[in-house]
Amino acid sequence: MADEPSPVIPGVEEETEAQNGRLMMEEAFRETVVPNWRQQLTVRALVTGFILSVAFNFIVCKINLSTGVIPSLNVAAGLIGFAIVKTYTTVLEGCGLLKQPFSRQENTVIQTCVVASSGIAFSSGTASYILGMSSRIASRSDGLSMPENIKNLSLGWMIGFLFAVSFVGLFLIVPLRKLMVLKYKLTYPSGTATAFLINSFHTPNGAKLAKQQVRYLCKSSIGSFLWALFQWFFASSDGCGFSNFPSFGLKAFKKRFYFDFSATYIGIGMICPYMVNASLLIGGVISWAIMWPIIERQKGHWYSADIPADSLLGIMGYRVFIAIAMMLGDGLFHVVIMLIKTFSSLIKRTFNKEQVASIGSAGDGGHHVSGGIYDDERRAHYFLEDQIPTWMAIVGYLILAGISICIIPRFIFHQLKWYHILVAYSIAPILAFSNAYGCGLTDWSLASNYGKFAIIIFSAWVGSSHGGVIAGLAACGVIMNIVSTASDLMQDFKTGYLTLSSPRSMFFSQFLGTAFGCIMSPLVFWFFYKAYPVGDPDGSYPAPYSLMYRGIALFGVEGVSSLPKHCLTLSIVFFFLAIAINLLREVLVWFGHESYMYIPSPMCMAIPFYVGSYFVIDMCIGSLIIYVWERKNSQKAKDFAPAVASGLICGDSLWAIPATILSLAGVHAPICMKFLSYPVNKKVDNLIG
Amino acid sequence: MADEPSPVIPGVEEETEAQNGRLMMEEAFRETVVPNWRQQLTVRALVTGFILSVAFNFIVCKINLSTGVIPSLNVAAGLIGFAIVKTYTTVLEGCGLLKQPFSRQENTVIQTCVVASSGIAFSSGTASYILGMSSRIASRSDGLSMPENIKNLSLGWMIGFLFAVSFVGLFLIVPLRKLMVLKYKLTYPSGTATAFLINSFHTPNGAKLAKQQVRYLCKSSIGSFLWALFQWFFASSDGCGFSNFPSFGLKAFKKRFYFDFSATYIGIGMICPYMVNASLLIGGVISWAIMWPIIERQKGHWYSADIPADSLLGIMGYRVFIAIAMMLGDGLFHVVIMLIKTFSSLIKRTFNKEQVASIGSAGDGGHHVSGGIYDDERRAHYFLEDQIPTWMAIVGYLILAGISICIIPRFIFHQLKWYHILVAYSIAPILAFSNAYGCGLTDWSLASNYGKFAIIIFSAWVGSSHGGVIAGLAACGVIMNIVSTASDLMQDFKTGYLTLSSPRSMFFSQFLGTAFGCIMSPLVFWFFYKAYPVGDPDGSYPAPYSLMYRGIALFGVEGVSSLPKHCLTLSIVFFFLAIAINLLREVLVWFGHESYMYIPSPMCMAIPFYVGSYFVIDMCIGSLIIYVWERKNSQKAKDFAPAVASGLICGDSLWAIPATILSLAGVHAPICMKFLSYPVNKKVDNLIG
Repeated sequence: MADEPSPVIPGVEEETEAQNGRLMMEEAFRETVVPNWRQQLTVRALVTGFILSVAFNFIVCKINLSTGVIPSLNVAAGLIGFAIVKTYTTVLEGCGLLKQPFSRQENTVIQTCVVASSGIAFSSGTASYILGMSSRIASRSDGLSMPENIKNLSLGWMIGFLFAVSFVGLFLIVPLRKLMVLKYKLTYPSGTATAFLINSFHTPNGAKLAKQQVRYLCKSSIGSFLWALFQWFFASSDGCGFSNFPSFGLKAFKKRFYFDFSATYIGIGMICPYMVNASLLIGGVISWAIMWPIIERQKGHWYSADIPADSLLGIMGYRVFIAIAMMLGDGLFHVVIMLIKTFSSLIKRTFNKEQVASIGSAGDGGHHVSGGIYDDERRAHYFLEDQIPTWMAIVGYLILAGISICIIPRFIFHQLKWYHILVAYSIAPILAFSNAYGCGLTDWSLASNYGKFAIIIFSAWVGSSHGGVIAGLAACGVIMNIVSTASDLMQDFKTGYLTLSSPRSMFFSQFLGTAFGCIMSPLVFWFFYKAYPVGDPDGSYPAPYSLMYRGIALFGVEGVSSLPKHCLTLSIVFFFLAIAINLLREVLVWFGHESYMYIPSPMCMAIPFYVGSYFVIDMCIGSLIIYVWERKNSQKAKDFAPAVASGLICGDSLWAIPATILSLAGVHAPICMKFLSYPVNKKVDNLIG
Repeated sequence: MADEPSPVIPGVEEETEAQNGRLMMEEAFRETVVPNWRQQLTVRALVTGFILSVAFNFIVCKINLSTGVIPSLNVAAGLIGFAIVKTYTTVLEGCGLLKQPFSRQENTVIQTCVVASSGIAFSSGTASYILGMSSRIASRSDGLSMPENIKNLSLGWMIGFLFAVSFVGLFLIVPLRKLMVLKYKLTYPSGTATAFLINSFHTPNGAKLAKQQVRYLCKSSIGSFLWALFQWFFASSDGCGFSNFPSFGLKAFKKRFYFDFSATYIGIGMICPYMVNASLLIGGVISWAIMWPIIERQKGHWYSADIPADSLLGIMGYRVFIAIAMMLGDGLFHVVIMLIKTFSSLIKRTFNKEQVASIGSAGDGGHHVSGGIYDDERRAHYFLEDQIPTWMAIVGYLILAGISICIIPRFIFHQLKWYHILVAYSIAPILAFSNAYGCGLTDWSLASNYGKFAIIIFSAWVGSSHGGVIAGLAACGVIMNIVSTASDLMQDFKTGYLTLSSPRSMFFSQFLGTAFGCIMSPLVFWFFYKAYPVGDPDGSYPAPYSLMYRGIALFGVEGVSSLPKHCLTLSIVFFFLAIAINLLREVLVWFGHESYMYIPSPMCMAIPFYVGSYFVIDMCIGSLIIYVWERKNSQKAKDFAPAVASGLICGDSLWAIPATILSLAGVHAPICMKFLSYPVNKKVDNLIG
């Protein structure tokens, strides 16, 4: 899954280890019949996949619009999918009506469909590049609000655009599956973890554990749903309720440092490794407690004192561009290091044909999955059984590329010419291969980094007066979608390989999931967009990436001229700081020094620069819960923490559906829980009394 | 301990059973040397007793002033006393400086001292009859605010009065100890439970459990202290903060039905049996959800529409007098049933001299403590070793009575004449014996009931124009103090008997504890009285009993003339209802029907009539915690729930000390957490924005 803040994946790796312990290999399934690929694509699996796609699109969209820190929801998807179909089949079996037992291949189909669909929720960019085109964000980023650089959002073109660009990646990567999975035996940690999870569900012991996990997930999800419901009653207006609770005092609250009682982010904090949360906290403290106050003291010197607080020409400019600089530095470093790793790995393979096992260098967390010869043969057999002809893939790619080249410039973004799209489609295969290969090695998908560079290149190429901002953001969408769906599919092929699922059913499931995603993702976004002031930096849905992505595009077309004083210098410093921090980490890893684990992630540090630390507090509380739980009962924590965390996220996010409907219907909560300073309260008491 | 709401004692009985299981009898202490009575009264024990007396006076006073539902704090006193001295002796032992090991007799001395002192915090009536004399309460109860019926509070006379009346009970009951403990072998469940607890602490296994319990107690007390501290920051003014959280909506809040986040009452709820909490809830719902709204609809018909909301002539009159009627009905029933039981038991003994074992009838929860002959002999030996001469007791009683008769009418309450005091001191021995005997049988101390009847008798005797209200309340103080200290001391003699403590050290410890209490209790009360609007029905410290007791006195002098329409009828109905409910319970007990456990307690039902249900919600949450804990791990819940509950109560109540100091110093919290309805919030937003 192509997540923006890539460090979420280590959560999955931990999961892998947990599952590894009591892993049943193919011997356990010796007697189990493997259904053919049509039997894997059952109606019940696809219906379940669809239902979960809707739910997960809500979850991902909500998180995307609030902070953009998206955790890995694979465990939740796998668990809930298992629970739904298992319940269904058990009921049917009880009535004597069950025709086909629930197979792990079906489970994989559901999982693949859900992951594909929620992958689109991220790569569709509704919270980043697409929202960045809107006048709402343009009015904040200032300067370039000319009509050429604004694209009014509407459901029609968003869905059309997604359909045009989201399937290309699938066709692109299909021919490479044997190379990457069978020949190179790349690890794909997330895909492998998912496969282990699904395999474990379908062994007797695993089913028992899964049932318990489902129970934990349900409980925590009901709890977090009810908690969100309870919170709702106290938030009748903006600035009311638990999400504005100044737990560390009103001064800290103004610096966006408070606990906002969000079960979602507590859950995310529980899934993310300690270092991610620590990095976020470090970033939040450095920026809001030290840097911004220092810069704000220069108000009137460094920037004009009478520009609005949310203009990029003022303090907001420092927040956004320093964050962008850090992200770009981090992105550049990872792209370069990935290219180096990819090529050195490929060169090694060429010179040393024997070496086919996992080559993930230290720090990749590459679990070498030794399955024995029987396992390998059986898996290879089923992996090779159902073929997808290469010519079909190539033809599919060419047709889709043609359609995109015709449609996108003419009907959607007239700022892009046909040759821009052509260029994009020519680079895409290389980037897709590189990303899929790198992801197989390290589990990091760099799709959003490629997207960011695409913004700069295409924005600069088209130029401000011809709508370079929109062109850059649209090109970002093209590249991101292709690159991210490609690596997603390869992860799924790995999962399929390990669960004896047919590549053909994987492909169809991914195809269907992508289609669901292309429709659901804009719809869900539209829901939020109409109900809330999405993009308002002080609201519940600041959608930080929308401003960031537009900021990158501005940077592409304008260069540095638009920035406030010293902002460029600071940005350059932080750009190189990000590279330096990463370099330091790699060096420590290279020398096998344990302390590399304590180097914070620059990407994580940059997020609270703009958003503030409130969600970081939640996440640190999540870390604290995990820490205490692990100390009390390490095995139980390993078994159930991901389920509890997923439940917290799901329950809270699902409340967003009724909450949004209530908001659209104009129903307001009855009570406002307000936090007033002592003197203000005196005034209010005089007014009321 | 003479608690107002007597049903708290079953909590202790449960404790007894818990301890019973792994009870070590005297065999375990065969090798342990019993120190003589002077060695039992160590300086460290008395210092610890004094420190805990101060702390517990704060706790009891705070609870007394908020709702008057006082739980049994014996477990906490025993545990903390053990922890302090054990830590001290362990440190000294480590330095090689320990001269005398920590004995269970010392532990008993601490326990006795603390219980005596916090017993005075209750029977001193600072929250009931003494506060009821003040002009603050008089102005609420209306009608009789003439100077004769008001006594301005001052530290001097309160301490003097307590010294005059609180020691009488001790001398009165001393000669009877052999009769009650050795001959009648009365059970005294609380005293027995305490003895078991202390014995268990001093056996190797028990010490380990005690250490764990102390750890739980410390953790929960630190947690509840910090929680109280956190809450403080959000309560800058009245109506702010967590204690005004309308958890069930603003309408329910106005009916005083909400969760006020008080750790104290959650802890109390954890100690009290389910049926106590259920009774409170039933009472709260019947009164605030059904009765008061119906009566309020008659505003203008039944009572004048333009009298202030807190006048006894309006809706408040119904609340107060119906509650009083229920309490009097309950009290009368228990006094009568106790007299019947006492006399039937005495008659049985006279006719059947052989029968000396526990005669507690069904429902008394009388644990028959079979200790074997060795235990009995050893205990009797130490119980009889140190004598307190009977002539000394009688002389002490006569001297104290003489002093009281001289001093009280002349210097403190000129409304009482010398013959009133003489009459009171003549009845007191009978009541004291009856109460100490009944308490030995059933663990219920009826001191406050005797006090209430004393109010009616003496108020009516003196009459309104001669200050009958003050006379009645003062007589209540005389009777309550004598009766309650007497039964306390007998409980302690039982504890002493079972821990081989000398009666002489028990007597001294009780004497000293009483002296501490006579000084501390008015001081602590004064602290609250000066810092908060004590007695304000909408404040944090409504002190419900102060208005109730004054109400009884008004009833005594005026009869029924002052009540609003139909209030007398309703009061009579509830008076007999209380008797009927109790009678039903006794009948079910008599026929051995299990369902008697589901009959609510009228005394408990009456408390929320006036106060409302907010503390009941806390207590029910305490019940819920216990229920879940018992389901998850019954043994652990039994072992640690009392410790956790005590910790919650102690931590929260100890925060009252800094909070009161801050309040006296005029320091206000920085934030007001306010709850506004939607339209009010609109107005406020306009004002602020």
